[in-house]
Amino acid sequence: MKALKALGGLDGVRLVPVGDYQVLRDAAELVEGPFPLQRIDSLSRPRASGSGAEILHVEMPAQLLRGRVSAEAGEHTYRILETCSRLCLRGEAPALVTAPINKEALEAAGHGGLGHTEHLARMAGGAAVETVFCLGDLRIFFLSRHLPLRAALETIRKDTVLAALVRMDSAMKALGVESPRLGVPGLNPHCGDGGLFGTEESEEIAPAVAAAQEMGLDVQGPIGADSIFHMGLVGAFDAVLSLYHDQGHIAVKTRDFHGTVTMTLGLPYLRTSVDHGTGFDIAWQGAANPESMIRAVQLAVDHLQRRAFTEHH
Amino acid sequence: MKALKALGGLDGVRLVPVGDYQVLRDAAELVEGPFPLQRIDSLSRPRASGSGAEILHVEMPAQLLRGRVSAEAGEHTYRILETCSRLCLRGEAPALVTAPINKEALEAAGHGGLGHTEHLARMAGGAAVETVFCLGDLRIFFLSRHLPLRAALETIRKDTVLAALVRMDSAMKALGVESPRLGVPGLNPHCGDGGLFGTEESEEIAPAVAAAQEMGLDVQGPIGADSIFHMGLVGAFDAVLSLYHDQGHIAVKTRDFHGTVTMTLGLPYLRTSVDHGTGFDIAWQGAANPESMIRAVQLAVDHLQRRAFTEHH
Repeated sequence: MKALKALGGLDGVRLVPVGDYQVLRDAAELVEGPFPLQRIDSLSRPRASGSGAEILHVEMPAQLLRGRVSAEAGEHTYRILETCSRLCLRGEAPALVTAPINKEALEAAGHGGLGHTEHLARMAGGAAVETVFCLGDLRIFFLSRHLPLRAALETIRKDTVLAALVRMDSAMKALGVESPRLGVPGLNPHCGDGGLFGTEESEEIAPAVAAAQEMGLDVQGPIGADSIFHMGLVGAFDAVLSLYHDQGHIAVKTRDFHGTVTMTLGLPYLRTSVDHGTGFDIAWQGAANPESMIRAVQLAVDHLQRRAFTEHH
Repeated sequence: MKALKALGGLDGVRLVPVGDYQVLRDAAELVEGPFPLQRIDSLSRPRASGSGAEILHVEMPAQLLRGRVSAEAGEHTYRILETCSRLCLRGEAPALVTAPINKEALEAAGHGGLGHTEHLARMAGGAAVETVFCLGDLRIFFLSRHLPLRAALETIRKDTVLAALVRMDSAMKALGVESPRLGVPGLNPHCGDGGLFGTEESEEIAPAVAAAQEMGLDVQGPIGADSIFHMGLVGAFDAVLSLYHDQGHIAVKTRDFHGTVTMTLGLPYLRTSVDHGTGFDIAWQGAANPESMIRAVQLAVDHLQRRAFTEHH
């Protein structure tokens, strides 16, 4: 609701929260200076102007237990996700911006075992999706994500790094960057310092970069992991490949904890998301920081307005 | 020279660059608006007031090849390091702030195989030293530093983490923090998410934290590595333990590339240092960023003024 209020005046954009109208109206009361809301039940009619922000109503059948995990809330979350997915797959909405979901509640409702993105991929017919971190103009791709670090190290091979670079290059082009400049970090301290502190750089990463360069890609690396994200953020790269989950996560979350958003590639619509959890410990206090949600919406709007996304499917 | 100029008015502090007077005078010319310099050959006489910034002269016997590696420059670097170490060991200077050195040049001069800190430790009679990262009020300690990541993972054990926490606690107390609040990150994505993405958290890190808490230490963890450094920087911790080199390096260098400084514990004097390399590619262009040097000096001055350091030896 804070983000909705902050973004209220987005020109030419129909920004519609999806959820229980009563719950969201109660949430709106928490925001300083309540604002008018309007319940709608479908996106098929054009927006009625001047009648307040629209809420696409999805009924929460039970009483919401505030700040507590419940199977009912998990089921409600899942219904909202289904509604949003259906709207986007039908083309009624061009983009989906997701808030965090509570895995425990989803599991209690019988929808466990999959993450947010995996649910959306399954609903879209099993699309092969990829999560990209966005901070400023920098995009961060991941060689692996939810693997133990030891297992993630086994995935750092010349062929996997090369394949990731090729995917990054075409994804960035699809996002409207004509000649994407890609960066690859090292794995070991100071990129192994010539083999003194590790050999992955010389045996796997540098050969992958060389092979990608031969294919005509604009790639540099390996570059020390403690420098490359800074370099990217000041404009030296359009995208950087994170060799394991925490490498990129530590970088962007320490740089700008509240400002990081993620983008999902591979779905038949654009999806961006906040990069934080549900925060049940501060539920209904009006204390949530809306910055990541605001940026996630802005990122989606930017991409839609550049038409970069729609041009490519 | 930029840092010296910026810090010229430090009250009650005698800030003396050590090096070849002529070389440093030439460098001062590069800084907008040259300032008066005064050559001295020892620190034993009190400062003559009003006669410009002092330079403690160490003769460079050969011609300096600007922006190029040479054995002569390496030998000169080593002589400067010896001079500084001697001044501090004798108590003529209470603190040393070091600029980067060029390893290749030192090696060409026959002083290879050791880093900056290791040279100083050897000159101090083989002191057991520890490098600490400083950003704002946060201190970052390292479980290991210059090891291949795979080897660093082997050092993450309950006993080593516990020993590191005990060392951190006493080091922070020696630095004047009465009740240091320590934080320990996880190793795997989302701290292993209950064992789903790794077991180091449950088998090694959490037991070490519990044992430290039983000893009365104020320790929290494991906390996701993509959150804990941000939490520390906004004041939740006084010190965080980096479980491997890049974990802490990526965090602070991405957060504030030019502002990070390091501090060496274990020498019989205070030593701080910039956290960047020599930058031969921009030598003598007047383009170097003095921020890390300025902060390294300020950090040393802060500690001296609090007398936290001198109280403890």
